[in-house]
Amino acid sequence: MNIQNCYCVIMAGGSGTRFWPVSRTSRPKQFLDVASKGKTFIRETYDRFLKIVPKENIIIATAAKYREIVQEQIPEIDSSNILLEPYPRSTAPCIAYATYTLLKRNPEAQVVVTPSDHLIDDEDLFVETIRKAFEYVETNDVLMTLGVVPTRPDTNYGYVQAMGGKEAFLSDTPMQVKTFTEKPDKDMATLFINTGEFFWNAGIFIWRASTIKSEMEKYLPEVTDLFNGWEAAIGSKIEEEFILRAFSDCMNISIDYGVMEKTDRAWIYPVKFGWNDLGTWESLYNFLPEKDEDGNAFQSGKILAEDTHNVMVVSPEKKKLIAIKGLEDYMIIDTDDVLVICPKDDKKFKDFISGIAMPDYEKYR
Amino acid sequence: MNIQNCYCVIMAGGSGTRFWPVSRTSRPKQFLDVASKGKTFIRETYDRFLKIVPKENIIIATAAKYREIVQEQIPEIDSSNILLEPYPRSTAPCIAYATYTLLKRNPEAQVVVTPSDHLIDDEDLFVETIRKAFEYVETNDVLMTLGVVPTRPDTNYGYVQAMGGKEAFLSDTPMQVKTFTEKPDKDMATLFINTGEFFWNAGIFIWRASTIKSEMEKYLPEVTDLFNGWEAAIGSKIEEEFILRAFSDCMNISIDYGVMEKTDRAWIYPVKFGWNDLGTWESLYNFLPEKDEDGNAFQSGKILAEDTHNVMVVSPEKKKLIAIKGLEDYMIIDTDDVLVICPKDDKKFKDFISGIAMPDYEKYR
Repeated sequence: MNIQNCYCVIMAGGSGTRFWPVSRTSRPKQFLDVASKGKTFIRETYDRFLKIVPKENIIIATAAKYREIVQEQIPEIDSSNILLEPYPRSTAPCIAYATYTLLKRNPEAQVVVTPSDHLIDDEDLFVETIRKAFEYVETNDVLMTLGVVPTRPDTNYGYVQAMGGKEAFLSDTPMQVKTFTEKPDKDMATLFINTGEFFWNAGIFIWRASTIKSEMEKYLPEVTDLFNGWEAAIGSKIEEEFILRAFSDCMNISIDYGVMEKTDRAWIYPVKFGWNDLGTWESLYNFLPEKDEDGNAFQSGKILAEDTHNVMVVSPEKKKLIAIKGLEDYMIIDTDDVLVICPKDDKKFKDFISGIAMPDYEKYR
Repeated sequence: MNIQNCYCVIMAGGSGTRFWPVSRTSRPKQFLDVASKGKTFIRETYDRFLKIVPKENIIIATAAKYREIVQEQIPEIDSSNILLEPYPRSTAPCIAYATYTLLKRNPEAQVVVTPSDHLIDDEDLFVETIRKAFEYVETNDVLMTLGVVPTRPDTNYGYVQAMGGKEAFLSDTPMQVKTFTEKPDKDMATLFINTGEFFWNAGIFIWRASTIKSEMEKYLPEVTDLFNGWEAAIGSKIEEEFILRAFSDCMNISIDYGVMEKTDRAWIYPVKFGWNDLGTWESLYNFLPEKDEDGNAFQSGKILAEDTHNVMVVSPEKKKLIAIKGLEDYMIIDTDDVLVICPKDDKKFKDFISGIAMPDYEKYR
């Protein structure tokens, strides 16, 4: 395997409102350090992939409006390695743009495509896993996705059923994919994990650029047709205009739905490192390692808590004294301009406030 | 009655931490508009007494450190009418200082002494009541205190037992005082209000300056001895030094405990206007007239509340969006640097945070 042929595409275009009110459209989760790791998610992701591919082979694809935040957080990245999506169009158009860009640079390109806001708990194992996946796709014309062994019937994740199941997992062997299922209900998820054939779809893909190109052309011609003429346009003076037009007309579709669920080239590589997409405030609470004897997780300044259990307090500035009494299983999120106090597991209320309230709130300010 | 002989002394020296964290030692309750009346307590008190006595007859006694706040909130007051207490010594030394000051100006002075942070709900009736009390003390050598008919066995108030009770109340007649009781327990308070002989002590006193002077000399010589020489000192160049020395050596004692409970000249005048000393956050909740259909009182900016009942939210800047779910009988107080979330009636916790936490917190900042 020639490491000069290995590339990384970090997708950082999401407007991540799930950590609202800490995350905002103007500064979504990937640009924050919600998990108090000392680095923002995108910085940590970038540093992780620096251990795998050369610096000049790391591409960040993001929304045009986040260019400055990316440059501020990854100052060493060359501006030609920041791909700007003029409109939010989910992952398939983003991957199309990145794929054509890399093919223009190197027809032999092998690529790992990754979200920018996940937690990985064993970097060495992660690095080793990605290297092995690169080796596999070098000689196999497959679209590889990483699969995490599920530990609970989580209904927030996508599930991938593999031909091979536990044995393949134990022997560290890539398996062909049988089915994809997006966010099943609780009963279905429980059934899934009991079979031993299902994995969580980590959303990290490894493939040759030429493979994903031909599979997209096959299953998503509505998208790839818009990129006709990419060989001349990309890297030229008209790139920005070309991309603006392509994205403008493009459908909004994920690579999972548009390609992975349809192709017979989908393979899954079972992984053994710890993975968490921190998709909800509650998952952050579950992740935070330091809890007090009452199960409280305080990501804040000085706290006085009495008769309070399993409560999470997040006050990003950590400047405020917060005194709480008599709360159970609550979360308290305090920012400069928003205060949320609600049960940790109340997804409906949180969706309500981060969905309905947020745009309304932008107006309100 | 000669109105030129009528004076008002507004006591505004308290460091009021009961509305912490909104009130601070640096800006206690009397300088705030906790009840959202559109005026601070001291401003409202001052304006109320302007309807009774001439402007130049209103004295404000306050702690030296609050001089600037007083001047800012009552810009029209002459600086000679601001008496500065160099040390906090409760009400008796404050009243001694004010009494000598007024006697120096006018040996015939009649005085109403009042706290600066109470709510009065019928100003016309209040004005009429004080005028009648002034008339009474003009010809009677008594120390008059205003008595409010108790509506509940409140354990935060002082109670005054009167010779006369309900009949005297109905006929609007001052009554001699039988007993004083500071903050009884619940059973005692219930007993009190059932007899019909007890009133809440509003802490508003009316007397002739010469009467309180001689009663203080009789019952509090430890205090009055320190003011020996006041005729020469007050109004002279040495006043500040004289007062500094007097307060420095003076005991800390209230006029109730030091004089009113001991003298046989204590009389009570029953009042019919609404009165509330807003001594606790909970009393503010009870006072606030505009509650939503779930009994919530929101003194804040935009609120999203679901499944929330009898909750008070106070966010003085009113700039923040506050989203709450599933709280019952709670109070949420949010300031720039402190957030309190606790049951409204949990006096112990509130005392804890405003007592223990506050000095600690000043350190913490």
